[in-house]
Amino acid sequence: MKKLINDPNDVVVEALRGIEAAHPELRVDHESKVIYRGDAPKRGKVGLISGGGSGHEPLHGGFVGLGMLDAACAGEIFTSPVPGQILAATKLVDGGAGILHVVKNYTGDVMNFEMAAEMAAAETGARIVSVVTDDDVAVQDSTWTAGRRGVGVTVLLEKIAGAAAEQGRDLDEVAQVARTVNENGRSMGLALTSCTVPAAGHPTFDLGDDEMELGVGIHGEPGRARLPLAPASEIASLLVEPILSDLPFTRGNPVIAFVNGLGGTPLIELYVVFNEVQKILGGRGVPIARSLVGSYITSLDMAGVSITLLRVDDELLSLWDAPVNTAALRWGI
Amino acid sequence: MKKLINDPNDVVVEALRGIEAAHPELRVDHESKVIYRGDAPKRGKVGLISGGGSGHEPLHGGFVGLGMLDAACAGEIFTSPVPGQILAATKLVDGGAGILHVVKNYTGDVMNFEMAAEMAAAETGARIVSVVTDDDVAVQDSTWTAGRRGVGVTVLLEKIAGAAAEQGRDLDEVAQVARTVNENGRSMGLALTSCTVPAAGHPTFDLGDDEMELGVGIHGEPGRARLPLAPASEIASLLVEPILSDLPFTRGNPVIAFVNGLGGTPLIELYVVFNEVQKILGGRGVPIARSLVGSYITSLDMAGVSITLLRVDDELLSLWDAPVNTAALRWGI
Repeated sequence: MKKLINDPNDVVVEALRGIEAAHPELRVDHESKVIYRGDAPKRGKVGLISGGGSGHEPLHGGFVGLGMLDAACAGEIFTSPVPGQILAATKLVDGGAGILHVVKNYTGDVMNFEMAAEMAAAETGARIVSVVTDDDVAVQDSTWTAGRRGVGVTVLLEKIAGAAAEQGRDLDEVAQVARTVNENGRSMGLALTSCTVPAAGHPTFDLGDDEMELGVGIHGEPGRARLPLAPASEIASLLVEPILSDLPFTRGNPVIAFVNGLGGTPLIELYVVFNEVQKILGGRGVPIARSLVGSYITSLDMAGVSITLLRVDDELLSLWDAPVNTAALRWGI
Repeated sequence: MKKLINDPNDVVVEALRGIEAAHPELRVDHESKVIYRGDAPKRGKVGLISGGGSGHEPLHGGFVGLGMLDAACAGEIFTSPVPGQILAATKLVDGGAGILHVVKNYTGDVMNFEMAAEMAAAETGARIVSVVTDDDVAVQDSTWTAGRRGVGVTVLLEKIAGAAAEQGRDLDEVAQVARTVNENGRSMGLALTSCTVPAAGHPTFDLGDDEMELGVGIHGEPGRARLPLAPASEIASLLVEPILSDLPFTRGNPVIAFVNGLGGTPLIELYVVFNEVQKILGGRGVPIARSLVGSYITSLDMAGVSITLLRVDDELLSLWDAPVNTAALRWGI
């Protein structure tokens, strides 16, 4: 195992110290492993809290800041945060207008966010609504989920719902925006290599030198098929076609196209894939209204890519374009 | 070789098409492989042109835009752009106030930018000044250089000199700012793995499972030493100490601290390294005024990290903080 780490058990703790030092506008509660806005709580604003296992950086801590999340709870690598962490985050950012939990659909995450919501409601009286993302079309049930896995749409949802909250909309409205994003977005990923969890010290799965895993999950969960290595044009098609056939992505209906690296993939390859994606969408008459190309929801050092398409209208686009100021996404400010 | 590509010979051409599709505010001259600002030429503004071999993305194309570069010339992978490309870029962005060439110190780049400057001066009469970066303290001469290699400081220089040009300063002033950045910045890198050039199809160098290359160049050039794998704390020290001893980084003199991934390294590891860097600097009383953590000057899929420290005063800091709107760096707008 070759990693820039010290003790494998200290990776999350030390990365949080690094994040705190690199981004003075953020605060970190090291005991609860919560990254939160330096200006929290924002009185009268709906608070957005997300979190999940670490190892997917910049998700979620890199999306804390104006126009996006109020707080992110960092679990151990690929392990849900515990309810106490989420409760602590709620207390740190509760501005009195209610809290939206953004939860990726993995059994542990769903359970722990639910438990935390009950605890917070009992302790603080805060009103909490959860929205669960389940955008991965690869498999119906999975190693760690009942139903589909939550993946790339989570990034877009946190941006768009975060903008709605920043505009002062109420909890029901923000939750409705979040649900709309999840309903209109679909994703699928592909691995060229496994990831290696530091505490395990060896690759999560074996993949031959001439193989790739289609439909892989962000923890290295098995996908749809183990296939021979293919060129980028074929890979893009293997990912985009199942997405397009899962929702009516109709001619003329614009999308946000998100080509995401899984952690070990260089940017030049993501642009090669994006070129293939735009050719496929162009051929279908699906306009790309906005795009995002980079490594935003990763699987440690896994080489590979995921593609997310989100159908948008003017309302969602204007929320996407609204100012955001986080470590990983920033514009308009 | 596992890469998200089609024909290895088409990687640069296709990536440029992807960049053009993903960033509508940019223009791409595909024949000359030049990425340039959609609003170029900016009348009365000094034009900043950089470029170099591809494979270091987002450098340089990801830094084209308001407050940074006017144009970037993309050579083939790890191969200098030819003079004709640089000449084409000059014509595309010449706003009549002169042109600054930002050149990393590699023999081919220096020669080709020089030749292009002569051609442009003869053809268009444009006044052109070159600033060469040579911030890598690892080795004095190298595979592809006389003198030190230009690495991470190039990113900081393009941002800071770009801000000076955007403010309307004249060519001599912008060039002076650029020289000041190069003189006050030092870098060093370390590889955990080799990179693989697509057309070669095999790793550039061999590195054992328990080895790392200290002082590696951004094309996989040999560094100072082949060492046994070490924890992040030791790696940070192996990189920071030679930097600190190369310039008087004195107590109280603030720096921009830049921890850069080499392409195959996940963000969580970069934050672990940043934590070590801030501890070392804290112990020396060197304040971190600003930081940059991410993969900005890469070596294809190489796993590893480089560290750049730049001594700054209020003037350089205010140029760093000025608005920038590029694919890879964006703030204030």
